[in-house]
Amino acid sequence: MKKLKPIEQIKIREKMSVAELLESMKNSGVLGAGRLAKAAEIYRNMLSDKECRIFLGVAGAMVSGGMKLIIHDILENKQTDVFVTTGANLTHDLIESLGYRHYQGTPKTDDKKLHDKNIDRIYDAFMHNEVYQGLENFFKKTLHKLPNKEFTVREFLFELGKLSPEKSILNICYKNNIPVFCPALADSGIGLQLWNYIQKNKLNISAINDLNEIIDLAWTAKKSGVIYIGGGVPKNYIQQALQISKGASYGIQITSDVPEFGGSSGAELREGISWGKMQPEGKFVNLICDATIALPIIYAAVKGVKRGK
Amino acid sequence: MKKLKPIEQIKIREKMSVAELLESMKNSGVLGAGRLAKAAEIYRNMLSDKECRIFLGVAGAMVSGGMKLIIHDILENKQTDVFVTTGANLTHDLIESLGYRHYQGTPKTDDKKLHDKNIDRIYDAFMHNEVYQGLENFFKKTLHKLPNKEFTVREFLFELGKLSPEKSILNICYKNNIPVFCPALADSGIGLQLWNYIQKNKLNISAINDLNEIIDLAWTAKKSGVIYIGGGVPKNYIQQALQISKGASYGIQITSDVPEFGGSSGAELREGISWGKMQPEGKFVNLICDATIALPIIYAAVKGVKRGK
Amino acid sequence: MKKLKPIEQIKIREKMSVAELLESMKNSGVLGAGRLAKAAEIYRNMLSDKECRIFLGVAGAMVSGGMKLIIHDILENKQTDVFVTTGANLTHDLIESLGYRHYQGTPKTDDKKLHDKNIDRIYDAFMHNEVYQGLENFFKKTLHKLPNKEFTVREFLFELGKLSPEKSILNICYKNNIPVFCPALADSGIGLQLWNYIQKNKLNISAINDLNEIIDLAWTAKKSGVIYIGGGVPKNYIQQALQISKGASYGIQITSDVPEFGGSSGAELREGISWGKMQPEGKFVNLICDATIALPIIYAAVKGVKRGK
Amino acid sequence: MKKLKPIEQIKIREKMSVAELLESMKNSGVLGAGRLAKAAEIYRNMLSDKECRIFLGVAGAMVSGGMKLIIHDILENKQTDVFVTTGANLTHDLIESLGYRHYQGTPKTDDKKLHDKNIDRIYDAFMHNEVYQGLENFFKKTLHKLPNKEFTVREFLFELGKLSPEKSILNICYKNNIPVFCPALADSGIGLQLWNYIQKNKLNISAINDLNEIIDLAWTAKKSGVIYIGGGVPKNYIQQALQISKGASYGIQITSDVPEFGGSSGAELREGISWGKMQPEGKFVNLICDATIALPIIYAAVKGVKRGK
Repeated sequence: MKKLKPIEQIKIREKMSVAELLESMKNSGVLGAGRLAKAAEIYRNMLSDKECRIFLGVAGAMVSGGMKLIIHDILENKQTDVFVTTGANLTHDLIESLGYRHYQGTPKTDDKKLHDKNIDRIYDAFMHNEVYQGLENFFKKTLHKLPNKEFTVREFLFELGKLSPEKSILNICYKNNIPVFCPALADSGIGLQLWNYIQKNKLNISAINDLNEIIDLAWTAKKSGVIYIGGGVPKNYIQQALQISKGASYGIQITSDVPEFGGSSGAELREGISWGKMQPEGKFVNLICDATIALPIIYAAVKGVKRGK
Repeated sequence: MKKLKPIEQIKIREKMSVAELLESMKNSGVLGAGRLAKAAEIYRNMLSDKECRIFLGVAGAMVSGGMKLIIHDILENKQTDVFVTTGANLTHDLIESLGYRHYQGTPKTDDKKLHDKNIDRIYDAFMHNEVYQGLENFFKKTLHKLPNKEFTVREFLFELGKLSPEKSILNICYKNNIPVFCPALADSGIGLQLWNYIQKNKLNISAINDLNEIIDLAWTAKKSGVIYIGGGVPKNYIQQALQISKGASYGIQITSDVPEFGGSSGAELREGISWGKMQPEGKFVNLICDATIALPIIYAAVKGVKRGK
Repeated sequence: MKKLKPIEQIKIREKMSVAELLESMKNSGVLGAGRLAKAAEIYRNMLSDKECRIFLGVAGAMVSGGMKLIIHDILENKQTDVFVTTGANLTHDLIESLGYRHYQGTPKTDDKKLHDKNIDRIYDAFMHNEVYQGLENFFKKTLHKLPNKEFTVREFLFELGKLSPEKSILNICYKNNIPVFCPALADSGIGLQLWNYIQKNKLNISAINDLNEIIDLAWTAKKSGVIYIGGGVPKNYIQQALQISKGASYGIQITSDVPEFGGSSGAELREGISWGKMQPEGKFVNLICDATIALPIIYAAVKGVKRGK
Repeated sequence: MKKLKPIEQIKIREKMSVAELLESMKNSGVLGAGRLAKAAEIYRNMLSDKECRIFLGVAGAMVSGGMKLIIHDILENKQTDVFVTTGANLTHDLIESLGYRHYQGTPKTDDKKLHDKNIDRIYDAFMHNEVYQGLENFFKKTLHKLPNKEFTVREFLFELGKLSPEKSILNICYKNNIPVFCPALADSGIGLQLWNYIQKNKLNISAINDLNEIIDLAWTAKKSGVIYIGGGVPKNYIQQALQISKGASYGIQITSDVPEFGGSSGAELREGISWGKMQPEGKFVNLICDATIALPIIYAAVKGVKRGK
């Protein structure tokens, strides 16, 4: 056993910056605090490694959870190279970019009463059902402008991003040429709009052709780094692409899931070593924490960090 | 407040049957035991309600977790009408139907050593990497036999099921005419085989056209009941279809996720009332439990129950 | 790596007994099902090992959770040698033995309304506040009968058990000569009654002298086995006594806690090996499951098992 | 339903202070981030309310988790009036005050190897077993100096604090006249030292007499506020005292436990309203988060805040 590092007790100072707090947490080096600091450090490592291609997977409904601008910042600052997410995130983001809002609610409210008021609940966030009308109007005027071709989901989202409002994930990714993958696009509010559209129109989006591009991105990377906010399909889809590559050299996972139930979302990153999805010598951290707490803190430490050149 | 029922203490007898245990748990009526019993009861209710269309969503990698034969039984006994699942479940099931096995491992094993032995780890289950060769052989000889058309995922899985080994989920569903939906099919070992195939062949599977059928199944149901084993895309995809209907009358959810982190997987079923996905007067239960414990117990209570006529 | 055992898929048969279900779960050998079966097996091992002294630690408020009769059965059948628990369990058990009941409630009920109706809530169990009057009456007539001496908590509970109603934990342990430890007795409804009593009377119960007896029980055991239902003080108190011994040879832990947050309740039993609380070659299982589900199932498999002779 | 507040998306700026981050999280108002900000706000409210008596309950082994100096700061700055904790925290703190350290380890290390090296593991923290020799020396020279009387645990810890090293919790509390309660003192390393001492000496510490003082502190408070870091006995012991009072007006709970399993540790604070432990109109927040992440952040926002006068 190599020489052990002592746990430096975390010391709080008034007006401390988030970066200073993380520095102190890093020196404690244990439990969630230690892992949070390590996550920020690994993200810095990825950003400064000019050979590293970063794959960011964001599950859940993080936009209605207040994480929208952090995601926007990461994309605008090109602090990821590939973005894999759920239809839910793209839908809620589009809703806000169209001028609608999400609201602070409570999980205790009677859901029947909410239904009578046309309010949809996402745990403690509320959304007026009228947003669907806004979405419908947007898609009604937008989808007809798309080229008539067989799309991959990534291509479709690229074209949709071109026509999406500024300050939306899709438009930001379009402008910054960041590929957006959404393997279960149909499973979302956007999916429902596309269903609406195909009642009278033809829309050809392939369920599998995206694999060519995501696997190519994994295969051609000199090194790769992964960041998983939540697990779900975004994590697994990136992991799977890495299996057809030399495996990731860096990895950060933030979930509320634990490994003991055996699911992919909670699986420790080191499990990926057995599959060849992760490098045995890679730098990894698994942080079990509400992402709305962990992500802002980590991002506060890397916001201004430029990519290695 | 209506008259309260006392908690009857659970009483164990030697050689007790699972059904008797559930009866005792039902009379306790609280915590996990009470909810487990309620889940079995609601499944019975669904089965005996001849107007009820049952939607079963199974996330995760349940086949490598020992749940394969229970899923087979449910499908063969037509104890669900619609099956929505992950590519992982279909892949691991296909692997076993091709003659391969999963093995009892441990989560502590060094993943580097497993990798060197070509063993893939799924928490405490191990799988020899050679299964991929078996999958490849199967798909190599099978995919060329498929009709040349634009498939929905459901149609593709139906055709694949026709050519799949007996005692596989896909073949059982084919024979019993149970539609199988897999919204993120690309995100799985089957997905990788399809990627392999499209390197030299054309395969047209739509990412969105399945919505027509799943929504139609929700829309045309006199009543509907949902069973979610794990959350993820299978749950959300069914929930979304129900939003375009009158909402489910029965619901069972078994997850290791909790509601407090705001994700769809852990969201209580009553949240769906606000969205119109669930009937305010429906019978619902949310059970937080390892599905490999809860599902066998529940199924032991309903195995022989025939559908209402 | 030794030869791997395949995962046998769990097969449900109609009218299956709990023991048969556990047998099938044992053959699956993975995840919660595998661990549940292993827990039952290890309990059988402990019972049949005539050199094994069994320490049972039960945290939480398991009596209001429907586990009372299982605990009674374990004690009456001498399927443990030592019982360590919380004041909450002793209090709720005493309440029922005095003729009061707990009731099936819901966690959603407005707590202000419950307060106005003099109902106390324990998640989804309700209790009428009047039980405290019953407790007070019991202690008023009982405490004066106790010998005037310096008690350990164990001795006090023994004397109290002598005067407690039949079919109470304390009385059963008194009759069966099973020592009951309750390190935080003051932290309970019984504690409040004692506080009431000492307003006018003297009662000398030592906070530390029990350590002599529990450590002696650990020290003099040829072998020891531990069963932890929940973590908390009962687990830690037994673990600590084992540290002054050769370490436990068998261990079962059932908690809803996970190890990743670093607390004693969720800590895996193998952690105890580093401390000398557990034998490196011992048989241990950590099961993460609602105890109201796991305990009845495990107990159904060992109910009739006699101690080794 | 009153007018809803929109969720303001969290915005990260470079070199942001922790306080500024919390301000942004407060404006998001949902999920963990919203609750974390609310916790900091409620702590500020408690500190500025001159009628409020603050009860701080700290469970677990937080000192080996890096939280020691934050606890010291809270006590030195009199940001709590009453301190209730576990023997584990007092023991690990005393160990460090005697010059020993805890070390950064990993949960994956083989526990048998650690045992052979005399290293004790607390998840990912390591401790040399030699600390017990240091503890023994300290108690050997200290306990004989204590007055010969019947102590409450609180009185005993006060006297012990007088003789404890500077920069220890007990000494800080002694100097600042903050009562320290430790209902399960025997269940700890300090407990083991006391057991060692009573092999040849008499030490009379009451298991129940502390209730007089803690209940008096609750009863005589004009208002009370509670802060629970972890649940366990510290939480329940404070809650119980509040039951014999008008109930707390402020409450903060940070746990890794969830309410759904029915235990006291994870129970939402509002449950206390039914019992009369909490005021129906009180300000409460339940935050499910690793305390080593949440506590430093919250404390960064209140470090310099003086008590209301």
